[in-house]
Amino acid sequence: MPDVVFPLDSTRRFTDQDKIGHNRWHPDIPPVATVKPGDSFRVHCREWFDGEIHNDDSADDIRNAPLHTVHALSGPFAVEGAKPGDLLIVDILDLGPIPQEDSGPLAGQGWGYTGIFAKPNGGGFLTDQFPDAYKAVWDFSGQKATSRHIPHVSFTGIVHPGLMGTAPSHDLLSTWNTREAALIATDPDRVPPLALPPEPNGAILGSLTGAEFERVAAEGARTAPPRENGGNQDIKNLTKGSRIFYPVFVDGANLSVGDLHFSQGDGEITFCGAIEMGGFIDLRVELIPGGMDTYGVSENAIFMPGNTDPQFSEWLAFSGTSVTLDGEQRYLDSQLAYQRACLHAIEYLTKFGYSPEQAYLLLGAAPIEGRLSGVVDIPNSCATVYLPTAIFDFPLSPTVDGPVRIDPGIGAPRSPA
Amino acid sequence: MPDVVFPLDSTRRFTDQDKIGHNRWHPDIPPVATVKPGDSFRVHCREWFDGEIHNDDSADDIRNAPLHTVHALSGPFAVEGAKPGDLLIVDILDLGPIPQEDSGPLAGQGWGYTGIFAKPNGGGFLTDQFPDAYKAVWDFSGQKATSRHIPHVSFTGIVHPGLMGTAPSHDLLSTWNTREAALIATDPDRVPPLALPPEPNGAILGSLTGAEFERVAAEGARTAPPRENGGNQDIKNLTKGSRIFYPVFVDGANLSVGDLHFSQGDGEITFCGAIEMGGFIDLRVELIPGGMDTYGVSENAIFMPGNTDPQFSEWLAFSGTSVTLDGEQRYLDSQLAYQRACLHAIEYLTKFGYSPEQAYLLLGAAPIEGRLSGVVDIPNSCATVYLPTAIFDFPLSPTVDGPVRIDPGIGAPRSPA
Amino acid sequence: MPDVVFPLDSTRRFTDQDKIGHNRWHPDIPPVATVKPGDSFRVHCREWFDGEIHNDDSADDIRNAPLHTVHALSGPFAVEGAKPGDLLIVDILDLGPIPQEDSGPLAGQGWGYTGIFAKPNGGGFLTDQFPDAYKAVWDFSGQKATSRHIPHVSFTGIVHPGLMGTAPSHDLLSTWNTREAALIATDPDRVPPLALPPEPNGAILGSLTGAEFERVAAEGARTAPPRENGGNQDIKNLTKGSRIFYPVFVDGANLSVGDLHFSQGDGEITFCGAIEMGGFIDLRVELIPGGMDTYGVSENAIFMPGNTDPQFSEWLAFSGTSVTLDGEQRYLDSQLAYQRACLHAIEYLTKFGYSPEQAYLLLGAAPIEGRLSGVVDIPNSCATVYLPTAIFDFPLSPTVDGPVRIDPGIGAPRSPA
Amino acid sequence: MPDVVFPLDSTRRFTDQDKIGHNRWHPDIPPVATVKPGDSFRVHCREWFDGEIHNDDSADDIRNAPLHTVHALSGPFAVEGAKPGDLLIVDILDLGPIPQEDSGPLAGQGWGYTGIFAKPNGGGFLTDQFPDAYKAVWDFSGQKATSRHIPHVSFTGIVHPGLMGTAPSHDLLSTWNTREAALIATDPDRVPPLALPPEPNGAILGSLTGAEFERVAAEGARTAPPRENGGNQDIKNLTKGSRIFYPVFVDGANLSVGDLHFSQGDGEITFCGAIEMGGFIDLRVELIPGGMDTYGVSENAIFMPGNTDPQFSEWLAFSGTSVTLDGEQRYLDSQLAYQRACLHAIEYLTKFGYSPEQAYLLLGAAPIEGRLSGVVDIPNSCATVYLPTAIFDFPLSPTVDGPVRIDPGIGAPRSPA
Repeated sequence: MPDVVFPLDSTRRFTDQDKIGHNRWHPDIPPVATVKPGDSFRVHCREWFDGEIHNDDSADDIRNAPLHTVHALSGPFAVEGAKPGDLLIVDILDLGPIPQEDSGPLAGQGWGYTGIFAKPNGGGFLTDQFPDAYKAVWDFSGQKATSRHIPHVSFTGIVHPGLMGTAPSHDLLSTWNTREAALIATDPDRVPPLALPPEPNGAILGSLTGAEFERVAAEGARTAPPRENGGNQDIKNLTKGSRIFYPVFVDGANLSVGDLHFSQGDGEITFCGAIEMGGFIDLRVELIPGGMDTYGVSENAIFMPGNTDPQFSEWLAFSGTSVTLDGEQRYLDSQLAYQRACLHAIEYLTKFGYSPEQAYLLLGAAPIEGRLSGVVDIPNSCATVYLPTAIFDFPLSPTVDGPVRIDPGIGAPRSPA
Repeated sequence: MPDVVFPLDSTRRFTDQDKIGHNRWHPDIPPVATVKPGDSFRVHCREWFDGEIHNDDSADDIRNAPLHTVHALSGPFAVEGAKPGDLLIVDILDLGPIPQEDSGPLAGQGWGYTGIFAKPNGGGFLTDQFPDAYKAVWDFSGQKATSRHIPHVSFTGIVHPGLMGTAPSHDLLSTWNTREAALIATDPDRVPPLALPPEPNGAILGSLTGAEFERVAAEGARTAPPRENGGNQDIKNLTKGSRIFYPVFVDGANLSVGDLHFSQGDGEITFCGAIEMGGFIDLRVELIPGGMDTYGVSENAIFMPGNTDPQFSEWLAFSGTSVTLDGEQRYLDSQLAYQRACLHAIEYLTKFGYSPEQAYLLLGAAPIEGRLSGVVDIPNSCATVYLPTAIFDFPLSPTVDGPVRIDPGIGAPRSPA
Repeated sequence: MPDVVFPLDSTRRFTDQDKIGHNRWHPDIPPVATVKPGDSFRVHCREWFDGEIHNDDSADDIRNAPLHTVHALSGPFAVEGAKPGDLLIVDILDLGPIPQEDSGPLAGQGWGYTGIFAKPNGGGFLTDQFPDAYKAVWDFSGQKATSRHIPHVSFTGIVHPGLMGTAPSHDLLSTWNTREAALIATDPDRVPPLALPPEPNGAILGSLTGAEFERVAAEGARTAPPRENGGNQDIKNLTKGSRIFYPVFVDGANLSVGDLHFSQGDGEITFCGAIEMGGFIDLRVELIPGGMDTYGVSENAIFMPGNTDPQFSEWLAFSGTSVTLDGEQRYLDSQLAYQRACLHAIEYLTKFGYSPEQAYLLLGAAPIEGRLSGVVDIPNSCATVYLPTAIFDFPLSPTVDGPVRIDPGIGAPRSPA
Repeated sequence: MPDVVFPLDSTRRFTDQDKIGHNRWHPDIPPVATVKPGDSFRVHCREWFDGEIHNDDSADDIRNAPLHTVHALSGPFAVEGAKPGDLLIVDILDLGPIPQEDSGPLAGQGWGYTGIFAKPNGGGFLTDQFPDAYKAVWDFSGQKATSRHIPHVSFTGIVHPGLMGTAPSHDLLSTWNTREAALIATDPDRVPPLALPPEPNGAILGSLTGAEFERVAAEGARTAPPRENGGNQDIKNLTKGSRIFYPVFVDGANLSVGDLHFSQGDGEITFCGAIEMGGFIDLRVELIPGGMDTYGVSENAIFMPGNTDPQFSEWLAFSGTSVTLDGEQRYLDSQLAYQRACLHAIEYLTKFGYSPEQAYLLLGAAPIEGRLSGVVDIPNSCATVYLPTAIFDFPLSPTVDGPVRIDPGIGAPRSPA
């Protein structure tokens, strides 16, 4: 086990640890540790809501999820010698739930959760169809996840960090804040909002205090979106063995990581999202000096996924196009096409006995694949979503005999919006 | 070899065959043949432009591609007993280039092409960055494709039909024409257009003649977009061994197929697009009576891909978010995020010596994967594009040593817009 | 389609064609055609018994199979410039059943067969347990095979040539004949025999006639075993896209090919064996001058399998050790261990309703994997055989509920030894 | 983390722990713990030689390896309610090197080893060609292994227990001892021996003492071979997520496990063997009452491998037949054929600069595949060994340009026999 450069004690809050992480992006958040190129090191990660979501049968915690507090990030980690313009190579050596702790109140202690945010509190991919809050709790057994809230499925986790990235420069941060403010300004009262502006309330900024804390809290970018620095990309394939190349924008690179997922479907469509958990991640870093220019990687991480993802050889896939549910034709809108594909999958699963919200939660959590199948055939994009049939304990594909009916069990807890 | 229910003679035009196909969607186009549930049958397919694109080193043919003539479709094939509300099971038993003909002037005779439409004549996914017309010709050798216009790559084809679907009902056709007209009306002079209205000029409608031809030509929907009936979905994974379930909207289902691709990347981003070819396809059909309601499949095909797609175990992936090249923040726009991911891949490939258009053509043709990685992290979608490193004959991943430089050869023919 | 350098007319016997192949190995069999390095070419192949096995429900043809006539081989093909000491690169571009002919009396015309030889006529891997002759006929539908004699299974073919190789030199041929004669001499009357000596009766030797025919027929090695030149290796993974490197022993290399299989399990345990068929194979050849010494490949082909083999993600595996059925301990005998593993699999399948011979035939034909798992743990080897569960239309793995019972149908035809 | 039912303290010998395991098979070794069907539990495992092999650059420890002390096994674990005739389902939930300890003197503390036994002390698969002792030490970094003794390779571990099984009944034990004694009697002085008889010297028998210890030590079967109870099967595919079904021969089943491998090639050809390590394994057990008869599994485990093994899509394979190096023809001897295939692979690798022993050690440790390709083509078996090309940092396949030359580094330590 590599040295733990960022330890977390599961019995204490994220803000009451020996080393304090952060939940905003800002170049002036001081590194919590410095590593050298070639070093391997272990980082503990807290689940993104720092324990506010519970292993119970109520969705009230999801309904009231404190969005201004996310994401509880570990870091930043300075890499000796890293300079703006370099590429930072990050190898994911290993990661998983909280080691040696398989029961307890923290997600990652043998369990995790998938939530659907209520429309007034963040919403999600299909928030117009699912305006209320829902939750599913998943139990881990070795590599596999099952849920009392979504019976008849079991799958091997495709464990990955939802969020990892380097610190932005002051210029880059300014660019973010400017462009996102401009978007918000187009519809400032929208529910859910178009984007999230800097928010001092709830900010965690490492060791910063006093006036410096106030300044950085007022400027720091929220961690929800992926951006030029990587960030909350939610790429489910960043599993063990992956190698990622991040652009470096500040001296030391200042790498941060968090939002671990036991599993996730492409898109993390439920927003709250994946199977959320705390845990550990072992990383190794290297540098390619000047690599951003050498390889034309001026923004957004590039990566090579690992080779031990769970394998499936049979899939049932659904397609969608960019026509709204109301029948309006949109122009090459792959976001909409994927929504329609996912709604088709949900409709299909209900024919077997699942509630729509069980199906929605499942698509957010299971290793489904979402593909941009056609993006040019005016006016319709075609998006597809692939479900591995082996995760179900009943036959999933259509036959002349019609669907079997499963017992949906207690269902997914709901908390009205 | 199953019986050929739709033969094509390679020496004659698509409109000068014993059986005439069609290039518009309409319920009143008469079936060219009737098959029974359980039947296997072979269908010949003409490349979508009926031979207008040549195996040469000029892109003028792409520049002037006659868009009003596409897609040359084989069919419709009536399935005995099929009723609206049924699901039509279509098994793709086999497919490939024109059998026994490996040289000749028709795409599919041992070769195929990928084009980039000029902006005034259709455009494409990245038309703002690539307004001119380009072409790459690919040579087939067994399962593999190589191109004199894009050297240093070779890959196993992921052969599939770009377009397959059932005939729309009159109601459904009317819905299409209405909603697409409404979209066009929002910007009728746009170049390229938002959508394509019915176009009698160039219409091919099977055995229809006279007034009936005129009526159907005036009403028939264009075949470019995928719609509720399947259609031009361009799903690269509909390979040999795939099973597709189509909704049935008219008596007999009236299945049509065409636009065969030797290979394609997810999205078919070059529009003209994939590796285009004529060839054959062997199909077997079955029915699930009432299956649309039973399984909740009221629209858009669902499918189970085959299990012999080419396997790759190492990928280099690029990510993009929904920020425009000009720095404008868009709201959860996966179409844009995929454009940015593809542009990143193109930029990267140019560092090895490819021209940008070679890289663009390659992404349209090779078995790349496009994923909807994050679709909820406001305001940024995250899309990713995966390149299999094994298709290149040089090492593709970033290292401290920097990229090797390949000889890009004669490059891709260009014809100015 | 590449040029056909060795055509076969399905209506005529193998010995009544324009070009005559061969069924013995000998350096003096004249090439039927000459190809150049870089050439692609098509070869027709006759099924190994030249039509003696029929698509019917009797195993009498297997019982009386004329072993002295096998294998009907296409070739030899001389490669311009090939010299002893070179490595001959052979790319398998494509292969399959007889094209354009999907019904007829010849295996390969839409069907194939698996047989179990009777003990007095060749026997097989489990001949002590299965002394009689059995047959199963398989129907091809696209890539898939099913059998009226073995219901409830369906699988994608893993199509490959059972036999391909270069001609031996005179020295090498002499070595073969000497060492095999020595083995036979240890038990000359064994049934089945230990090996097969040269046999003029039934010899086919291309264009040779007269005294030269007599001499070569008396010396020519039988084609049953794999040897230094490749030959009847029965490697099921030599599928489309494979590249093989053969040692060259004579000027021109003199490559021959035949014994096409629609599918086969590792080991081809039924001997008669795989799913036998005639068909076509498209090859491309290249040379590595002096490659045998350069790469240390003095004998036995090396190869790189293709990347489109059927994929399975769930297997049920059986193990065996080197203890005989009578309880005798043998020393590290992987042949025996694999027999025991296969017998375990057969026993297991009978619990679902199959007859033992149905199970045996299935293991010979389906894409099962046979592994040398442990070869050093004295005194027991451990061999394992993996069955892909997806080929069965019922759940195959053990559960508390016990096995489902299938209807075994008409069973496999039997002809007593 | 499941409860640890068998803990090991890395600072103490295997025989100086709170709970003592065993290194012989016998029904009267008392269980160290009892678990219930449905239970998950963690077991610590000591490397098979209990720390006698060191992380250094000498092979003297391998030369003098105390074979009478192996294998250090954890258990037996009694399963409540298990009866002879049941099938014991064992799920491998997780396993790996010693957690939280990545450096130290014990194999499993961040490193492991592969050895080649000297011919006078156990020998191995190719002991006639490699009579001396050799060693390679492997370092673990996340999922990957590299070795200073075998440079230019790196691979993801295919982690598995080499040995797991249920206790034999008295009858079964008697059968083993009888049949193995009979084999030994055929050549009692052979070096290396044909089999290993019971050996009181070095026996570890859990909590047994006194006369009972003496009796059991005199009768207990050695753990080297796999047998009816599973045992030392060395099946490299028993990775995370695997489910194994063991026959139950005694009340409580009495499951034992050990001999963890970080990686292994099919066959574990070096005998000492795989990449040996200590570590942990998390198991879950269930019962199928009467399952041995219900499913016809009277002996030898059956299993379903997990779905997260490392994936490779390009392989270079070598074949061998059953002819000895001296040119003697053997009859269908797959053991010999695999030896020849492995020797061909070794010869090939030396052309790139490796020493023969480096190549041999690599084949024992890396995830190579060994297949029984042909087992009926008298008189020659054909066995094949597949090397994944991606584990090498140089191009491995043959080309006209000849092999690159790598620097073999310090080589593998050798200790003369």
